[in-house]
Amino acid sequence: MRLYDYHAAPNPRLVRIYLAEKGISIPTVQVDITKGEHQSAEFLKHNPMGRVPVLELDDSTCLSETVAICRYFEALHPEPALFGSDAKNQAVVEMWRRRMEFDVALPAMMAMRHTHPMFAHEKQIEAYAELSRQRVEDTMQWLNGELGGREYIAGDTYTIADITALIGFDFGRIVDLRVPEHLPALWRWYQSVRSRPSSSS
Amino acid sequence: MRLYDYHAAPNPRLVRIYLAEKGISIPTVQVDITKGEHQSAEFLKHNPMGRVPVLELDDSTCLSETVAICRYFEALHPEPALFGSDAKNQAVVEMWRRRMEFDVALPAMMAMRHTHPMFAHEKQIEAYAELSRQRVEDTMQWLNGELGGREYIAGDTYTIADITALIGFDFGRIVDLRVPEHLPALWRWYQSVRSRPSSSS
Repeated sequence: MRLYDYHAAPNPRLVRIYLAEKGISIPTVQVDITKGEHQSAEFLKHNPMGRVPVLELDDSTCLSETVAICRYFEALHPEPALFGSDAKNQAVVEMWRRRMEFDVALPAMMAMRHTHPMFAHEKQIEAYAELSRQRVEDTMQWLNGELGGREYIAGDTYTIADITALIGFDFGRIVDLRVPEHLPALWRWYQSVRSRPSSSS
Repeated sequence: MRLYDYHAAPNPRLVRIYLAEKGISIPTVQVDITKGEHQSAEFLKHNPMGRVPVLELDDSTCLSETVAICRYFEALHPEPALFGSDAKNQAVVEMWRRRMEFDVALPAMMAMRHTHPMFAHEKQIEAYAELSRQRVEDTMQWLNGELGGREYIAGDTYTIADITALIGFDFGRIVDLRVPEHLPALWRWYQSVRSRPSSSS
């Protein structure tokens, strides 16, 4: 089993943080996306979408998509439960994971994708970057209220929803979209998750 | 337990198709989004994001997000398995479900959201609608190749990945983005999943 990874990309970082929280260590292969290695014929055999990360299993099955990879490890190593405990809690965690993906990580990525010089070879729509930026800012306000009443995004324990939100907010920093200190509950949460050893993964 | 639903909206339809495939029937409450009922103070108590569907459990816990709702039922009623069987197959299904969400359903929705008069009160970016439309068309080409080799999106059995893709392609029809007959494997798949009794849900 090995993980096709790129140390400076946010999506593989989600998997790296997840694995660090689980205490799982596996061999990795670096795919330098700044050199276009994710578009090589060799890599496209592992993922026709040309995206990292990809987990290659011992039988050569290739799993792409961060959440699919994390869920695979969750099934093999259930503890500590990062996708929730019983059926109800798992559904609550999934609800929050998705909210963090669609209202933080994805728009933060779009704010970057549609303005950053790294994507200048693709069509960039500045108005969409601006709309996406606004969505992250609106989510920050709302999350600040939510986090006034609990420690983590999906409840009293750290889960995949926290990892997803952290990845998203850290992604936003590339385009100067930052968690502001004047939102105290969100700021407290952000400092708390960033200070975990896993976050340097 | 009850499901806040709206009969004409695509996201709740995903849950309705899923439940029909499972043979599960639960009471529903119609939330008419064309009349703004999803933004009422009453409904926002169930989902602060103001979106249907929402599943309200008997202990008043409210689950929003289609996939979280479906996964909850999957945990309670594992058969037939619509999220995959063993750990590896579940990861493969999740990979394909996500691809169908991010490369079919989401861009089809964006192609509509950024052009349709129903969303004229929000900021609409036509160039983004066009980019999204192109993404769905590119995915159709690619999927046509993939489906030459197997019956369903994620393998030999019908799964949540097929439901997600069907919802996405049917959503596209609103803006005249249609599965074309000249892509034979995709067309065969599309006719097959559309002819299941669940698809009229």
